[in-house]
Amino acid sequence: MPRAGTKSPKAPAGRSAANGTAADGPETEGPRSKRALILTAAIEKFGKDGYEHTKWATIADQVGIGQTALYHYFESKAHCLLTIMSLELERSLQAFRDVTTDVDRADKALEAAIAAAYAVSPREVLQMRILQSHMDLLATPRPSAKEEVERLKARALVRDIENEWTALIARGIKARDFRKGDAHALATLVLAMVVSVWRWYRPGGPMTLDEVREMYTAACLRVLAD
Amino acid sequence: MPRAGTKSPKAPAGRSAANGTAADGPETEGPRSKRALILTAAIEKFGKDGYEHTKWATIADQVGIGQTALYHYFESKAHCLLTIMSLELERSLQAFRDVTTDVDRADKALEAAIAAAYAVSPREVLQMRILQSHMDLLATPRPSAKEEVERLKARALVRDIENEWTALIARGIKARDFRKGDAHALATLVLAMVVSVWRWYRPGGPMTLDEVREMYTAACLRVLAD
Repeated sequence: MPRAGTKSPKAPAGRSAANGTAADGPETEGPRSKRALILTAAIEKFGKDGYEHTKWATIADQVGIGQTALYHYFESKAHCLLTIMSLELERSLQAFRDVTTDVDRADKALEAAIAAAYAVSPREVLQMRILQSHMDLLATPRPSAKEEVERLKARALVRDIENEWTALIARGIKARDFRKGDAHALATLVLAMVVSVWRWYRPGGPMTLDEVREMYTAACLRVLAD
Repeated sequence: MPRAGTKSPKAPAGRSAANGTAADGPETEGPRSKRALILTAAIEKFGKDGYEHTKWATIADQVGIGQTALYHYFESKAHCLLTIMSLELERSLQAFRDVTTDVDRADKALEAAIAAAYAVSPREVLQMRILQSHMDLLATPRPSAKEEVERLKARALVRDIENEWTALIARGIKARDFRKGDAHALATLVLAMVVSVWRWYRPGGPMTLDEVREMYTAACLRVLAD
C-alpha cells in the first residue's frame, strides 16, 4: 500500500473505515479493489492542495488507472469527496462511542471524547480538514443519485454525532456536573470549538495535538462547568 | 434598488462596504454601475442556494445584463465570491474597530466586539455564511490575477482581524481581566466560537441573534476569565 507513512501508528488497521475495508460494496471489494488507493490519493490531494485545485484526472494518474476504471468506483470528484466526508464522520462517531460508552461521569466522558477527537493520525487530520472545509455541501441536494446517497448518509451521521454530544451534556446537566442550559445549543458550541482546530492545525505547526487537547478540553469544561 | 428588504434597518447606508460604494474602482463607479446589483444577487444566491449550486449565468439573468457585461465587473464566479468575502471581512474588521477603540477595559471591549459580530442584517448573515463556508479558498493561489488580488486582500484582512482580537486579549491578560495564556491561541479559539454560529444560524430559527449573543458572550468570557 503506497503512502503507508501517512497511516497512524495508533490506529489498528481494521479500525479506520476510510481504508475501505468496512464500507466497500461487494463489487469493489477484495484485494484487487482500487477503491482504498483512490481514497488515499484523494485524501492527500484534497487535504493538501485543496478540493477545488485538484483535477479529478490526476487521481486516476496517481493510482495508475484509467478514467473508466476510476468512474467504476466514483462517478465524480464530488462523489469521492462526499464519500471521504461520510467515512470520516463514521470514524468520528465510532471513536466517540468507543471512549464514552463505559464512562459514568459526564465530565470524564467529555474529556475522553475530546481526547479521542485529537488522537488522530496525519491522514485523519487531512480527513477532518476536508470534512470541515466542505460541510456546506451537505446542505443542498446533489444532482446525481450516488452523490445524494453519500450526502444523506453524511447528514444523518452529523445528526447522530450532534445527538451523542447533546445526550452527554444533558446527562452532565442532570447530574449537576455541568451548569443548566440548552443541552443541544451547548453541544453545538462545544463541538464547534473542538472541530475548529482543523481549520488551522498543521503537523509541525506552532501547537502539538497534545497542547491542543489540553487547551480545548480546559475551554470546553469552563464553558460547561457548573 | 431591488431586494431592499434584505438590507439592515440598523446599518446606515454608507457603512456596508458590500454595497459597492467604497470598493468600486473608477471604471465601475457611478449610479449606472451594475456592480452593487450583481453583488446583491450573488449574495442572495450563494448564501441561500449555495455557491456550488449557483450557475454564474443566472446572476446575469437576475440583474438583467448579458454575460459580457457581467464579465466587465467580475471575470468569474470565483472572482465574485472572493470579492464578497473580502468585502465582508472589511466590514467585520471595521465594525470591530468602531466598537472597541474607545473601550478601556478588555472584557468590556470583548463584549462590545461580540455584540457587534451579531448586530447584523439578514444580508450580512448571508455574507458571513458565504465567508465561513469558503475560508479554505483563501489557502491556495488562484489561477487568475484578479481572483488572486481578492484572495490576497481577504487573507490580509483575516490576519488583521486575528491581530485585533489577539491584541484585545493580550491587553486583558496584562490587566488581569483575563487569565494567563497564549493570546493568539485564545483569540483563534474565541473567534472560532463567534463565527461558528454562521454555519447553523437561520433567521426565524430556534435561537434569535440576541440569544446567540448572550450565550456566546458568556461562553467566551468563561474561557477567558481569570
